[in-house]
Amino acid sequence: MSDAARPADAQVTTLVIMAFGELTTFERTATDAQFAPSVRDKVGLVDVAGHALNHYQALVERIEALGGDVVELMQDIAPEFTAFGERTRPRDWYESLMKGYVFDGILRDFYRAALVNLDETSERVATAVLDDTRQTEYLRARLASGIADEADLASRLALWGRRLVAEAVDRARRLIGRFDLAGDDGAIGALSQKVMSNHSLRMSALGLVA
Amino acid sequence: MSDAARPADAQVTTLVIMAFGELTTFERTATDAQFAPSVRDKVGLVDVAGHALNHYQALVERIEALGGDVVELMQDIAPEFTAFGERTRPRDWYESLMKGYVFDGILRDFYRAALVNLDETSERVATAVLDDTRQTEYLRARLASGIADEADLASRLALWGRRLVAEAVDRARRLIGRFDLAGDDGAIGALSQKVMSNHSLRMSALGLVA
Repeated sequence: MSDAARPADAQVTTLVIMAFGELTTFERTATDAQFAPSVRDKVGLVDVAGHALNHYQALVERIEALGGDVVELMQDIAPEFTAFGERTRPRDWYESLMKGYVFDGILRDFYRAALVNLDETSERVATAVLDDTRQTEYLRARLASGIADEADLASRLALWGRRLVAEAVDRARRLIGRFDLAGDDGAIGALSQKVMSNHSLRMSALGLVA
Repeated sequence: MSDAARPADAQVTTLVIMAFGELTTFERTATDAQFAPSVRDKVGLVDVAGHALNHYQALVERIEALGGDVVELMQDIAPEFTAFGERTRPRDWYESLMKGYVFDGILRDFYRAALVNLDETSERVATAVLDDTRQTEYLRARLASGIADEADLASRLALWGRRLVAEAVDRARRLIGRFDLAGDDGAIGALSQKVMSNHSLRMSALGLVA
Protein backbone atom coordinates (compact mmCIF):
# COMPACT_ATOMS: atom_id res chain seq x y z
CA MET A 1 0.00 0.00 0.00
CA SER A 2 1.29 3.51 -0.76
CA ASP A 3 2.12 5.79 2.17
CA ALA A 4 -0.69 8.21 1.22
CA ALA A 5 -3.44 5.58 1.36
CA ARG A 6 -2.31 3.88 4.57
CA PRO A 7 -3.37 5.45 7.88
CA ALA A 8 -0.34 5.54 10.18
CA ASP A 9 -2.29 4.35 13.19
CA ALA A 10 -3.64 1.25 11.40
CA GLN A 11 -0.04 0.36 10.61
CA VAL A 12 1.20 0.67 14.17
CA THR A 13 -1.95 -0.93 15.60
CA THR A 14 -1.51 -3.98 13.37
CA LEU A 15 2.08 -4.38 14.55
CA VAL A 16 1.10 -3.90 18.19
CA ILE A 17 -1.67 -6.51 18.01
CA MET A 18 0.78 -8.97 16.47
CA ALA A 19 3.40 -8.14 19.10
CA PHE A 20 0.93 -8.64 21.93
CA GLY A 21 -0.16 -11.92 20.36
CA GLU A 22 3.43 -13.17 20.25
CA LEU A 23 3.90 -12.01 23.85
CA THR A 24 0.86 -14.04 24.88
CA THR A 25 2.18 -17.06 22.99
CA PHE A 26 5.51 -16.63 24.72
CA GLU A 27 3.93 -16.50 28.18
CA ARG A 28 1.68 -19.49 27.58
CA THR A 29 4.47 -21.59 26.09
CA ALA A 30 6.83 -20.75 28.95
CA THR A 31 4.12 -21.85 31.40
CA ASP A 32 3.61 -25.06 29.40
CA ALA A 33 7.37 -25.62 29.62
CA GLN A 34 7.20 -25.17 33.38
CA PHE A 35 4.48 -27.80 33.76
CA ALA A 36 5.76 -30.15 31.07
CA PRO A 37 5.50 -33.85 31.98
CA SER A 38 9.11 -34.52 30.96
CA VAL A 39 12.39 -32.68 30.60
CA ARG A 40 12.31 -33.43 26.85
CA ASP A 41 8.95 -31.64 26.56
CA LYS A 42 10.26 -28.80 28.68
CA VAL A 43 13.30 -28.29 26.46
CA GLY A 44 11.16 -28.44 23.31
CA LEU A 45 8.68 -25.89 24.60
CA VAL A 46 11.39 -23.53 25.78
CA ASP A 47 12.67 -23.47 22.19
CA VAL A 48 9.15 -22.63 20.97
CA ALA A 49 8.87 -19.88 23.59
CA GLY A 50 12.20 -18.52 22.35
CA HIS A 51 10.86 -18.22 18.79
CA ALA A 52 7.81 -16.31 20.03
CA LEU A 53 10.09 -14.02 22.04
CA ASN A 54 12.20 -13.33 18.95
CA HIS A 55 9.05 -12.49 16.98
CA TYR A 56 7.88 -10.16 19.72
CA GLN A 57 11.24 -8.43 19.84
CA ALA A 58 11.39 -7.97 16.05
CA LEU A 59 7.90 -6.45 16.05
CA VAL A 60 8.69 -4.16 19.01
CA GLU A 61 11.83 -2.96 17.26
CA ARG A 62 9.77 -2.05 14.19
CA ILE A 63 7.07 -0.31 16.26
CA GLU A 64 9.72 1.76 18.01
CA ALA A 65 11.39 2.60 14.68
CA LEU A 66 8.00 4.00 13.61
CA GLY A 67 7.92 6.13 16.77
CA GLY A 68 5.30 4.05 18.64
CA ASP A 69 5.28 3.79 22.44
CA VAL A 70 4.93 0.02 22.86
CA VAL A 71 3.79 0.04 26.48
CA GLU A 72 1.13 2.67 25.91
CA LEU A 73 -0.17 1.00 22.76
CA MET A 74 -0.27 -2.42 24.36
CA GLN A 75 -2.35 -1.12 27.24
CA ASP A 76 -5.11 -0.53 24.73
CA ILE A 77 -4.90 -4.08 23.31
CA ALA A 78 -4.30 -6.03 26.52
CA PRO A 79 -7.95 -6.28 27.68
CA GLU A 80 -9.02 -8.07 24.47
CA PHE A 81 -6.41 -10.77 25.00
CA THR A 82 -7.10 -10.96 28.73
CA ALA A 83 -10.81 -11.49 28.06
CA PHE A 84 -10.07 -14.30 25.63
CA GLY A 85 -7.64 -15.88 28.09
CA GLU A 86 -10.21 -15.83 30.87
CA ARG A 87 -12.91 -17.38 28.72
CA THR A 88 -10.68 -20.25 27.60
CA ARG A 89 -8.82 -21.62 30.59
CA PRO A 90 -7.20 -24.95 29.76
CA ARG A 91 -7.84 -27.69 32.31
CA ASP A 92 -4.52 -29.43 31.73
CA TRP A 93 -1.26 -29.37 29.84
CA TYR A 94 -2.61 -30.87 26.59
CA GLU A 95 -5.50 -28.41 26.52
CA SER A 96 -2.98 -25.59 26.87
CA LEU A 97 -0.92 -26.93 23.95
CA MET A 98 -4.15 -27.23 21.95
CA LYS A 99 -4.95 -23.63 22.77
CA GLY A 100 -1.66 -22.56 21.22
CA TYR A 101 -2.27 -24.73 18.17
CA VAL A 102 -5.83 -23.50 17.54
CA PHE A 103 -5.75 -19.91 18.75
CA ASP A 104 -2.39 -18.89 17.31
CA GLY A 105 -3.29 -20.53 14.00
CA ILE A 106 -6.51 -18.56 13.76
CA LEU A 107 -4.98 -15.25 14.81
CA ARG A 108 -2.26 -15.64 12.23
CA ASP A 109 -4.81 -16.19 9.49
CA PHE A 110 -6.47 -12.95 10.50
CA TYR A 111 -3.15 -11.12 10.72
CA ARG A 112 -2.39 -11.99 7.09
CA ALA A 113 -5.44 -10.02 6.03
CA ALA A 114 -4.12 -7.00 7.96
CA LEU A 115 -0.72 -7.02 6.22
CA VAL A 116 -2.29 -4.60 3.73
CA ASN A 117 -1.96 -1.89 6.39
CA LEU A 118 1.82 -2.16 6.49
CA ASP A 119 4.65 -0.40 4.70
CA GLU A 120 7.24 -2.52 2.94
CA THR A 121 9.66 -2.86 5.85
CA SER A 122 6.93 -3.58 8.38
CA GLU A 123 5.37 -6.11 6.04
CA ARG A 124 8.71 -7.91 5.73
CA VAL A 125 9.03 -8.09 9.53
CA ALA A 126 5.44 -9.26 9.97
CA THR A 127 5.60 -11.81 7.16
CA ALA A 128 8.74 -13.36 8.63
CA VAL A 129 6.79 -13.87 11.86
CA LEU A 130 3.75 -15.36 10.10
CA ASP A 131 5.88 -17.62 7.91
CA ASP A 132 7.63 -19.19 10.90
CA THR A 133 5.78 -22.50 11.25
CA ARG A 134 8.01 -24.03 13.94
CA GLN A 135 5.48 -23.55 16.74
CA THR A 136 2.65 -25.13 14.74
CA GLU A 137 4.84 -28.03 13.65
CA TYR A 138 6.04 -28.70 17.17
CA LEU A 139 2.53 -28.56 18.65
CA ARG A 140 1.05 -30.70 15.89
CA ALA A 141 3.66 -33.42 16.45
CA ARG A 142 3.39 -33.29 20.23
CA LEU A 143 -0.42 -33.30 20.26
CA ALA A 144 -0.52 -36.16 17.73
CA SER A 145 1.81 -38.19 19.91
CA GLY A 146 -0.34 -37.49 22.99
CA ILE A 147 -3.48 -38.51 21.11
CA ALA A 148 -1.80 -41.75 20.02
CA ASP A 149 -0.88 -42.52 23.64
CA GLU A 150 -4.08 -41.63 25.47
CA ALA A 151 -7.34 -43.16 24.31
CA ASP A 152 -9.72 -40.46 25.55
CA LEU A 153 -7.60 -37.45 24.55
CA ALA A 154 -8.86 -37.24 20.94
CA SER A 155 -12.51 -36.70 21.85
CA ARG A 156 -11.65 -34.30 24.67
CA LEU A 157 -9.37 -32.18 22.45
CA ALA A 158 -11.91 -32.17 19.60
CA LEU A 159 -14.51 -30.75 21.97
CA TRP A 160 -12.03 -28.24 23.38
CA GLY A 161 -10.98 -27.26 19.84
CA ARG A 162 -14.58 -26.34 19.00
CA ARG A 163 -14.82 -24.16 22.09
CA LEU A 164 -11.52 -22.47 21.23
CA VAL A 165 -12.33 -21.77 17.61
CA ALA A 166 -15.61 -20.06 18.45
CA GLU A 167 -13.93 -17.79 20.99
CA ALA A 168 -10.87 -17.12 18.81
CA VAL A 169 -12.82 -16.15 15.70
CA ASP A 170 -15.11 -13.92 17.75
CA ARG A 171 -12.17 -12.25 19.49
CA ALA A 172 -10.15 -11.78 16.30
CA ARG A 173 -13.16 -10.27 14.48
CA ARG A 174 -13.63 -7.81 17.32
CA LEU A 175 -9.98 -6.78 17.27
CA ILE A 176 -9.86 -6.44 13.49
CA GLY A 177 -13.22 -4.65 13.43
CA ARG A 178 -12.52 -2.34 16.35
CA PHE A 179 -9.39 -0.99 14.71
CA ASP A 180 -10.76 -1.20 11.16
CA LEU A 181 -7.84 -3.30 9.96
CA ALA A 182 -9.28 -5.61 7.29
CA GLY A 183 -12.05 -3.99 5.31
CA ASP A 184 -15.82 -3.91 5.80
CA ASP A 185 -18.14 -6.51 7.33
CA GLY A 186 -18.42 -8.39 4.04
CA ALA A 187 -14.64 -8.70 3.75
CA ILE A 188 -14.33 -9.85 7.36
CA GLY A 189 -17.10 -12.41 6.80
CA ALA A 190 -15.30 -13.88 3.78
CA LEU A 191 -12.07 -13.87 5.76
CA SER A 192 -13.73 -15.72 8.64
CA GLN A 193 -14.83 -18.49 6.27
CA LYS A 194 -11.29 -18.91 4.99
CA VAL A 195 -10.01 -18.96 8.57
CA MET A 196 -12.51 -21.70 9.48
CA SER A 197 -11.45 -23.76 6.50
CA ASN A 198 -7.77 -23.49 7.52
CA HIS A 199 -8.76 -24.43 11.05
CA SER A 200 -10.49 -27.60 9.77
CA LEU A 201 -7.28 -28.57 7.97
CA ARG A 202 -5.29 -28.10 11.18
CA MET A 203 -7.73 -30.27 13.10
CA SER A 204 -7.62 -32.93 10.37
CA ALA A 205 -3.84 -32.98 10.69
CA LEU A 206 -4.44 -34.25 14.25
CA GLY A 207 -7.03 -36.75 13.05
CA LEU A 208 -9.79 -34.65 14.67
CA VAL A 209 -13.01 -33.32 13.19
CA ALA A 210 -13.36 -29.55 13.55
CA MET B 1 42.32 -25.87 35.55
CA SER B 2 44.37 -28.14 33.28
CA ASP B 3 42.57 -30.83 31.29
CA ALA B 4 44.33 -33.60 33.20
CA ALA B 5 43.15 -32.45 36.64
CA ARG B 6 39.55 -31.73 35.71
CA PRO B 7 37.07 -34.63 35.66
CA ALA B 8 34.99 -34.39 32.47
CA ASP B 9 31.74 -35.13 34.25
CA ALA B 10 32.23 -32.35 36.83
CA GLN B 11 32.67 -29.98 33.91
CA VAL B 12 29.47 -30.99 32.14
CA THR B 13 27.54 -31.28 35.41
CA THR B 14 28.46 -27.73 36.37
CA LEU B 15 27.25 -26.44 33.01
CA VAL B 16 24.04 -28.47 33.21
CA ILE B 17 23.22 -27.20 36.71
CA MET B 18 23.75 -23.65 35.50
CA ALA B 19 21.63 -24.27 32.40
CA PHE B 20 18.81 -25.73 34.45
CA GLY B 21 19.04 -22.78 36.82
CA GLU B 22 18.70 -20.33 33.94
CA LEU B 23 15.80 -22.38 32.57
CA THR B 24 14.07 -22.12 35.95
CA THR B 25 14.70 -18.37 36.03
CA PHE B 26 13.28 -18.10 32.54
CA GLU B 27 10.10 -19.99 33.46
CA ARG B 28 9.54 -18.05 36.67
CA THR B 29 10.15 -14.70 35.01
CA ALA B 30 7.82 -15.51 32.12
CA THR B 31 5.13 -16.41 34.66
CA ASP B 32 5.78 -13.17 36.53
CA ALA B 33 5.37 -11.34 33.20
CA GLN B 34 2.07 -13.09 32.66
CA PHE B 35 0.71 -11.98 36.03
CA ALA B 36 2.34 -8.54 36.03
CA PRO B 37 0.12 -5.76 37.41
CA SER B 38 0.84 -3.49 34.45
CA VAL B 39 1.89 -3.72 30.81
CA ARG B 40 5.08 -1.82 31.70
CA ASP B 41 6.00 -4.52 34.23
CA LYS B 42 5.10 -7.20 31.73
CA VAL B 43 7.36 -5.74 29.07
CA GLY B 44 10.21 -5.32 31.57
CA LEU B 45 9.95 -8.92 32.81
CA VAL B 46 9.76 -10.33 29.31
CA ASP B 47 13.12 -8.67 28.63
CA VAL B 48 14.54 -10.29 31.77
CA ALA B 49 13.12 -13.67 30.70
CA GLY B 50 14.82 -13.17 27.34
CA HIS B 51 18.22 -12.70 28.98
CA ALA B 52 17.75 -15.92 30.99
CA LEU B 53 16.76 -17.73 27.79
CA ASN B 54 19.90 -16.48 26.04
CA HIS B 55 22.02 -17.70 28.96
CA TYR B 56 20.33 -21.09 28.86
CA GLN B 57 20.89 -21.37 25.11
CA ALA B 58 24.57 -20.39 25.38
CA LEU B 59 25.12 -23.02 28.09
CA VAL B 60 23.24 -25.70 26.14
CA GLU B 61 25.33 -24.97 23.07
CA ARG B 62 28.50 -25.45 25.12
CA ILE B 63 27.21 -28.68 26.73
CA GLU B 64 26.37 -30.09 23.30
CA ALA B 65 29.78 -29.03 21.94
CA LEU B 66 31.27 -31.14 24.75
CA GLY B 67 29.13 -34.09 23.65
CA GLY B 68 26.63 -33.93 26.53
CA ASP B 69 22.99 -35.00 26.08
CA VAL B 70 21.21 -32.03 27.64
CA VAL B 71 17.83 -33.71 28.17
CA GLU B 72 19.33 -36.78 29.82
CA LEU B 73 21.63 -34.74 32.04
CA MET B 74 18.85 -32.37 33.08
CA GLN B 75 16.65 -35.26 34.14
CA ASP B 76 19.19 -35.94 36.86
CA ILE B 77 19.17 -32.32 38.08
CA ALA B 78 15.48 -31.51 37.75
CA PRO B 79 14.28 -33.05 41.05
CA GLU B 80 16.58 -30.81 43.11
CA PHE B 81 15.10 -27.68 41.54
CA THR B 82 11.56 -29.05 41.70
CA ALA B 83 11.95 -29.77 45.42
CA PHE B 84 13.16 -26.23 46.06
CA GLY B 85 10.32 -24.81 44.00
CA GLU B 86 7.72 -26.77 45.95
CA ARG B 87 9.14 -25.72 49.30
CA THR B 88 9.13 -22.02 48.39
CA ARG B 89 5.86 -21.17 46.68
CA PRO B 90 5.41 -17.41 46.44
CA ARG B 91 2.00 -16.16 47.61
CA ASP B 92 1.92 -13.22 45.22
CA TRP B 93 3.74 -11.41 42.46
CA TYR B 94 6.18 -9.51 44.69
CA GLU B 95 7.14 -12.69 46.53
CA SER B 96 7.88 -14.29 43.17
CA LEU B 97 10.11 -11.36 42.15
CA MET B 98 11.83 -11.63 45.53
CA LYS B 99 12.41 -15.31 44.93
CA GLY B 100 14.25 -14.46 41.73
CA TYR B 101 16.28 -11.78 43.49
CA VAL B 102 17.30 -13.94 46.45
CA PHE B 103 17.51 -17.43 44.96
CA ASP B 104 19.25 -16.57 41.71
CA GLY B 105 21.68 -14.34 43.59
CA ILE B 106 22.64 -17.16 45.93
CA LEU B 107 22.91 -19.81 43.23
CA ARG B 108 25.17 -17.57 41.21
CA ASP B 109 27.49 -17.10 44.15
CA PHE B 110 27.75 -20.86 44.45
CA TYR B 111 28.26 -21.27 40.71
CA ARG B 112 31.29 -18.97 40.83
CA ALA B 113 32.99 -21.46 43.14
CA ALA B 114 32.32 -24.23 40.60
CA LEU B 115 33.96 -22.36 37.70
CA VAL B 116 37.16 -24.17 38.72
CA ASN B 117 35.71 -27.30 37.07
CA LEU B 118 35.55 -25.69 33.64
CA ASP B 119 37.90 -25.54 30.68
CA GLU B 120 38.74 -22.13 29.26
CA THR B 121 35.93 -21.94 26.69
CA SER B 122 33.29 -23.21 29.12
CA GLU B 123 34.52 -20.81 31.77
CA ARG B 124 34.16 -17.92 29.33
CA VAL B 125 30.57 -18.93 28.54
CA ALA B 126 29.69 -19.42 32.21
CA THR B 127 31.36 -16.19 33.34
CA ALA B 128 29.44 -14.18 30.75
CA VAL B 129 26.25 -15.58 32.27
CA LEU B 130 27.30 -14.83 35.85
CA ASP B 131 28.51 -11.32 34.98
CA ASP B 132 25.16 -10.35 33.45
CA THR B 133 23.60 -8.32 36.26
CA ARG B 134 20.52 -7.09 34.33
CA GLN B 135 18.10 -9.42 36.10
CA THR B 136 19.35 -8.43 39.56
CA GLU B 137 19.29 -4.74 38.69
CA TYR B 138 15.78 -4.92 37.30
CA LEU B 139 14.44 -6.85 40.28
CA ARG B 140 16.20 -4.60 42.80
CA ALA B 141 14.69 -1.47 41.23
CA ARG B 142 11.21 -3.00 40.89
CA LEU B 143 11.16 -4.42 44.42
CA ALA B 144 12.44 -1.13 45.87
CA SER B 145 9.68 0.74 44.07
CA GLY B 146 7.06 -1.71 45.39
CA ILE B 147 8.40 -1.36 48.93
CA ALA B 148 8.22 2.43 48.64
CA ASP B 149 4.56 2.19 47.51
CA GLU B 150 3.18 -0.41 49.92
CA ALA B 151 3.67 0.10 53.63
CA ASP B 152 3.53 -3.56 54.71
CA LEU B 153 5.58 -5.00 51.88
CA ALA B 154 8.99 -4.41 53.50
CA SER B 155 8.32 -6.55 56.58
CA ARG B 156 6.61 -9.27 54.54
CA LEU B 157 9.48 -9.49 52.01
CA ALA B 158 12.10 -9.45 54.78
CA LEU B 159 10.42 -12.48 56.35
CA TRP B 160 10.06 -14.19 52.99
CA GLY B 161 13.72 -13.42 52.20
CA ARG B 162 14.82 -15.29 55.36
CA ARG B 163 12.77 -18.30 54.36
CA LEU B 164 14.21 -18.23 50.85
CA VAL B 165 17.82 -17.89 51.89
CA ALA B 166 17.65 -20.89 54.22
CA GLU B 167 16.16 -23.08 51.50
CA ALA B 168 18.44 -21.77 48.76
CA VAL B 169 21.67 -22.28 50.69
CA ASP B 170 20.58 -25.75 51.74
CA ARG B 171 19.61 -26.69 48.20
CA ALA B 172 22.76 -25.24 46.63
CA ARG B 173 24.98 -27.05 49.17
CA ARG B 174 23.26 -30.33 48.34
CA LEU B 175 23.74 -29.82 44.61
CA ILE B 176 27.37 -28.77 44.93
CA GLY B 177 28.06 -31.53 47.45
CA ARG B 178 26.23 -34.27 45.56
CA PHE B 179 28.27 -33.70 42.43
CA ASP B 180 31.48 -32.82 44.30
CA LEU B 181 31.84 -29.50 42.49
CA ALA B 182 33.43 -27.12 44.99
CA GLY B 183 35.83 -28.89 47.29
CA ASP B 184 35.41 -30.53 50.70
CA ASP B 185 32.99 -29.69 53.51
CA GLY B 186 35.33 -27.04 54.91
CA ALA B 187 35.52 -25.27 51.55
CA ILE B 188 31.75 -25.40 51.13
CA GLY B 189 31.31 -24.03 54.67
CA ALA B 190 33.57 -21.06 53.93
CA LEU B 191 31.78 -20.54 50.64
CA SER B 192 28.40 -20.55 52.40
CA GLN B 193 29.56 -17.76 54.71
CA LYS B 194 30.61 -15.65 51.76
CA VAL B 195 27.27 -16.34 50.07
CA MET B 196 25.39 -15.24 53.21
CA SER B 197 27.38 -12.05 53.36
CA ASN B 198 26.58 -11.23 49.71
CA HIS B 199 22.94 -12.02 50.43
CA SER B 200 22.95 -9.49 53.31
CA LEU B 201 24.26 -6.85 50.93
CA ARG B 202 21.48 -7.61 48.46
CA MET B 203 18.86 -7.31 51.20
CA SER B 204 20.41 -4.03 52.41
CA ALA B 205 20.12 -2.68 48.87
CA LEU B 206 16.35 -3.03 49.35
CA GLY B 207 16.51 -1.45 52.79
CA LEU B 208 15.77 -4.83 54.39
CA VAL B 209 17.62 -6.69 57.14
CA ALA B 210 18.69 -10.20 56.10
